[in-house]
Amino acid sequence: MSDNSFGKLFRVTTWGESHGPAIGCVIDGCPPRLKLSEEDIQPWLDRRRPGQSRFTTQRREPDQVRILSGVFEGQTTGTPISLMIENTDQRSKDYGDIATRYRPGHADIAYDMKYGIRDYRGGGRSSARETAMRVAAGAVARVLLRTLVGEGVKIRAALTGIGGQTIDPSRWDWDEVERNPLWCPDAESVGPWEALLDSIRKDGSSIGATVEVVAEGLPAGLGAPVYGKLDADLAGAMMGINGVKGVEIGDGFAVAALRGEQNADPIAPGPQFASNHAGGILGGISTGQPIVARFAIKPTSSILTPVPSITRDGESVEVMTKGRHDPCIGIRAVPVAEAMMACVLADHLLRDHAQCGWGR
Amino acid sequence: MSDNSFGKLFRVTTWGESHGPAIGCVIDGCPPRLKLSEEDIQPWLDRRRPGQSRFTTQRREPDQVRILSGVFEGQTTGTPISLMIENTDQRSKDYGDIATRYRPGHADIAYDMKYGIRDYRGGGRSSARETAMRVAAGAVARVLLRTLVGEGVKIRAALTGIGGQTIDPSRWDWDEVERNPLWCPDAESVGPWEALLDSIRKDGSSIGATVEVVAEGLPAGLGAPVYGKLDADLAGAMMGINGVKGVEIGDGFAVAALRGEQNADPIAPGPQFASNHAGGILGGISTGQPIVARFAIKPTSSILTPVPSITRDGESVEVMTKGRHDPCIGIRAVPVAEAMMACVLADHLLRDHAQCGWGR
Amino acid sequence: MSDNSFGKLFRVTTWGESHGPAIGCVIDGCPPRLKLSEEDIQPWLDRRRPGQSRFTTQRREPDQVRILSGVFEGQTTGTPISLMIENTDQRSKDYGDIATRYRPGHADIAYDMKYGIRDYRGGGRSSARETAMRVAAGAVARVLLRTLVGEGVKIRAALTGIGGQTIDPSRWDWDEVERNPLWCPDAESVGPWEALLDSIRKDGSSIGATVEVVAEGLPAGLGAPVYGKLDADLAGAMMGINGVKGVEIGDGFAVAALRGEQNADPIAPGPQFASNHAGGILGGISTGQPIVARFAIKPTSSILTPVPSITRDGESVEVMTKGRHDPCIGIRAVPVAEAMMACVLADHLLRDHAQCGWGR
Amino acid sequence: MSDNSFGKLFRVTTWGESHGPAIGCVIDGCPPRLKLSEEDIQPWLDRRRPGQSRFTTQRREPDQVRILSGVFEGQTTGTPISLMIENTDQRSKDYGDIATRYRPGHADIAYDMKYGIRDYRGGGRSSARETAMRVAAGAVARVLLRTLVGEGVKIRAALTGIGGQTIDPSRWDWDEVERNPLWCPDAESVGPWEALLDSIRKDGSSIGATVEVVAEGLPAGLGAPVYGKLDADLAGAMMGINGVKGVEIGDGFAVAALRGEQNADPIAPGPQFASNHAGGILGGISTGQPIVARFAIKPTSSILTPVPSITRDGESVEVMTKGRHDPCIGIRAVPVAEAMMACVLADHLLRDHAQCGWGR
Repeated sequence: MSDNSFGKLFRVTTWGESHGPAIGCVIDGCPPRLKLSEEDIQPWLDRRRPGQSRFTTQRREPDQVRILSGVFEGQTTGTPISLMIENTDQRSKDYGDIATRYRPGHADIAYDMKYGIRDYRGGGRSSARETAMRVAAGAVARVLLRTLVGEGVKIRAALTGIGGQTIDPSRWDWDEVERNPLWCPDAESVGPWEALLDSIRKDGSSIGATVEVVAEGLPAGLGAPVYGKLDADLAGAMMGINGVKGVEIGDGFAVAALRGEQNADPIAPGPQFASNHAGGILGGISTGQPIVARFAIKPTSSILTPVPSITRDGESVEVMTKGRHDPCIGIRAVPVAEAMMACVLADHLLRDHAQCGWGR
Repeated sequence: MSDNSFGKLFRVTTWGESHGPAIGCVIDGCPPRLKLSEEDIQPWLDRRRPGQSRFTTQRREPDQVRILSGVFEGQTTGTPISLMIENTDQRSKDYGDIATRYRPGHADIAYDMKYGIRDYRGGGRSSARETAMRVAAGAVARVLLRTLVGEGVKIRAALTGIGGQTIDPSRWDWDEVERNPLWCPDAESVGPWEALLDSIRKDGSSIGATVEVVAEGLPAGLGAPVYGKLDADLAGAMMGINGVKGVEIGDGFAVAALRGEQNADPIAPGPQFASNHAGGILGGISTGQPIVARFAIKPTSSILTPVPSITRDGESVEVMTKGRHDPCIGIRAVPVAEAMMACVLADHLLRDHAQCGWGR
Repeated sequence: MSDNSFGKLFRVTTWGESHGPAIGCVIDGCPPRLKLSEEDIQPWLDRRRPGQSRFTTQRREPDQVRILSGVFEGQTTGTPISLMIENTDQRSKDYGDIATRYRPGHADIAYDMKYGIRDYRGGGRSSARETAMRVAAGAVARVLLRTLVGEGVKIRAALTGIGGQTIDPSRWDWDEVERNPLWCPDAESVGPWEALLDSIRKDGSSIGATVEVVAEGLPAGLGAPVYGKLDADLAGAMMGINGVKGVEIGDGFAVAALRGEQNADPIAPGPQFASNHAGGILGGISTGQPIVARFAIKPTSSILTPVPSITRDGESVEVMTKGRHDPCIGIRAVPVAEAMMACVLADHLLRDHAQCGWGR
Repeated sequence: MSDNSFGKLFRVTTWGESHGPAIGCVIDGCPPRLKLSEEDIQPWLDRRRPGQSRFTTQRREPDQVRILSGVFEGQTTGTPISLMIENTDQRSKDYGDIATRYRPGHADIAYDMKYGIRDYRGGGRSSARETAMRVAAGAVARVLLRTLVGEGVKIRAALTGIGGQTIDPSRWDWDEVERNPLWCPDAESVGPWEALLDSIRKDGSSIGATVEVVAEGLPAGLGAPVYGKLDADLAGAMMGINGVKGVEIGDGFAVAALRGEQNADPIAPGPQFASNHAGGILGGISTGQPIVARFAIKPTSSILTPVPSITRDGESVEVMTKGRHDPCIGIRAVPVAEAMMACVLADHLLRDHAQCGWGR
């Protein structure tokens, strides 16, 4: 089954476990003659790489990506692009006692229920490490979008809340996002959040967060009714990021409190929209406005506080997780969210070309 | 492209416009030898049917479903099941002036941007009418789940909020849901909500809402990492319901404020879980707990209040929508949400059979 | 599962049994703004319709197609196109004794082995009647190809052999194909073949045949390595026609006897090819030459000669089939082959647009 | 697009070019808890490996496969299995003059027409080298079939004809296949064929061939009507092998000459079939009889005889191919055919489990 693939025409299949020899992905359907080299991908991986601040896991790996196929003399050939990162820092001894007991809130029990076996080393396939390949694929999607749509395409994400604290949207500054290790767009939130994270880390606990991702410069017409909706695909993509429990497009849950005249974005010739409650998508199709998605991500289950659980044999036990863990996985979800947005948009761009491109 | 299909193994393809001769769907992959007749489907359609209370559109149609293939002597044969409902009440004259102008907040402009053509009669393909076929497909999914899993499977939804007012969860009563025309589980909310809806309707306006859907009695092991996640598929399915702008699983957005020890559901032998913050899904795989999804749905864009807009020719105009419309599309989204949940679960059950069923 | 669909981007899903109320198909992915009406489809159905000569089944039905969705004011809208034909002549009494015994060479035993149930009326889903919807879908594919590629597209098939007799290729005349009831391109073969068929019919027997289908006027670049090969898709499409047991592209099985210098088609500037051993496809991709496929179709299993068989209960029995049957199903496979070729090409055209269309 | 994948539930995606750093594949959907190690795969690769006799290309590589994911402690985990073989012998200088001119009969011109770029080193993606990964995937499919169906599953292929000479079927001996370097089942054909191949090789030419592949011990019920037919999938899989131009199931093209009573396989209680004209498949579904497929493969286009062609710039030129090439690619197609058969059957086995497994 294609459970490890996403996208229909820009199709990404990822493979690999946290502590196996390598992780990788295959991108099938990328158009030919795009300029692509490892230099287009590596910077995005570097952004996501752990060990860069005290707020992400201390696992240290170069995460050096290699292009193994699909590129010739600096250009894509239209054949599958295989990307691989070798795992170099695999301190699997840290995870020894995890082999026989389940972490509450973690996927390990669900894997065992389904498969009757799991690679427990570092979370195996459920590790956030898998998201490195999403970031790599997203980098290729960015090249595709830049080449086919134009330099004006911008896909950016930011951390907008943590532990119940949220930014002041009026202070949103995209440049600030690049300046602090939390990808926070509100300079005044950075200090308090760093203090909160330090305290969480000291407690051996973890904390939830919210992330917003915005795509600008995309054409109208991406997406399709009724089950090929751009917002439905984005919702699936964002909900598929490890730990995400809620997803919004545009005004999101706030629409529940609105009346029709408050929610409808007035249209002026252009077309120009006087507001963007819709988050750039109507009827599942992009309108040319910024595409806005938002999600909440739970606190990681790997904490030092003991929680009641059971062993594989079904006996009661208390579980706490030693080892290196992010106190807030929302931080590293920021580059992943951008990458997933880029992949979904690249996919829908090709889908639109296929069906509707002929008469333009 | 398969934009009008959902599901991989229990695959539903819908077709039809609001004011065409009929709407229908084809279900491919349904197992053979399930007892199925129109009587298994019709009651669910009757629940969703418009015109039953003053809070839903006054379009009156019997919505009589016909099984055109795939069933022989009262049993499914394993071949595609074709379902059809004829459109009998198509007062298309109501929509005449909509042909040349766009309703702010409506899909019509997006369809035109993408396709350069749209069937403007009653919203065409973007009409909520299409969801009748989801309900029909959901009824078949229920038969599948009941037969393969057991009578204990329950998939139920309820209206949990409207216009910013929410139910008191402590008063949740599933029986109440069947007793009031709003599918509200809190008897004390019904009166005030009916009053609110009357006022909204009198104003020619509309209002947003929230819906919760719960599936019980399902086995552990449905879903898959990493892009076949049950929660990701549910998120896509719910976000694909007309007007939905936000989706949650389990605690949803509330997780952003939680610490790891608050979020993790403790596990006791069984396994039993002491709480259900996860909404029945860990790592994209069901755990056997109730599966809980929630979504927010925007106020419909068809309102009597004039909103600035443009014509197809790009000229400024004010638009207001005459005709028959639901003041709160969240109400009729309740049976649709149940149906989508049923379809997603049926699909994942078959997917699990395929990959993991062999050794059980 | 999508077992009743074919095509990826021009996606056709068929449904319906021989003796159910109707048969139909849904075409998903058709581009918008193609001029389409029932008049574009009906003539192709009329060509295939049974009862037109003494060499095809005497079942008489108008096979009147209805477009139920996806077309508005004479143009496709980009939404799914639903086509339906009502079954009007369903003399199911003819098939009564078939319910409990298996016809040697027929699909009925295989269906029962797989599904544990089958709709035995007229072959149910395995009936050649299903191919009417392929012809209908093929007619839409022709409109697509004509609109997107040009009027020069020609997709034609002919009966090239019957019962071991073959045409003389030097007498091939496409006009002759339309003049005789066998779709035979060689005027001198028609008489002897009619005599053979009369004798076969008198004997209550049936006979095998070969069909060749040729597509001209298509661009180079359709298809893809390695599992999206145009020839592999054509082979699957042709082998999927009821009764087909062998498929060839270009020189087909004759290549087994050739040396490299005999098989290679020399290339001149243009590019022009000095011959077409390849059948218009190299490496799975079209070259702009005529695309040539050929297949062999077995004699139908419905014959008056008794053959040893068993009942559903596993008891020995002799089976002979009364009722109306084609003495040579190869004849009616001719329009079906054209339709499948058209659908495969339409699909690959859209696939090529998606991936490679951007820079052209 | 998923052009580089095959299978729906046992899904194989291959990547890599002849002269890139490596080739590989990802298998998604393999059931968990199958015993699998590199030792299960390597022997099949060794069978296919070039350089083992004077009749296959002299490229010498160990073709050492590595499992990079999806296996833990000797068992599959249900997550994607990534396999990789490093390319170690990449004498790309041999192919230098191929960069600017097209080989008649080769895929290079078609790739250029489609993509506007091609990796000309050793045929790039169109190289037979890609088939190594099919053999590797086939080895995993064999493990799946052996585990889920039983030790009785046998999937074997043999070279049945070369240059117009064919074996005597009455001398068919599966043991002989393993004894000669041509995989020929007829001991008396081996000598003359070796002489023919020596002469072909001396001439710098190449020759066509036929291959037959037989699967035994499989259950009835694999496949599905109407577009999920087992024979249609096999036809697509076989036609997708490099150079294949014709495919047959069972009696294949011979059916064109048969009458109904000659073609129908009589059925006795069991069910037992008195003959196997059908090749083990009726109505697209397996019957439990041996599944028999056959194909013709063209002579490779890489020959020393000059053939008229053009350069990339469209100028006339004569092309002959230096370098290491198989005089008869049919020989190395034998293990590839077995592998494709195994993959298709594994896929259909899982598909059957999904839909029909519930009541057994």
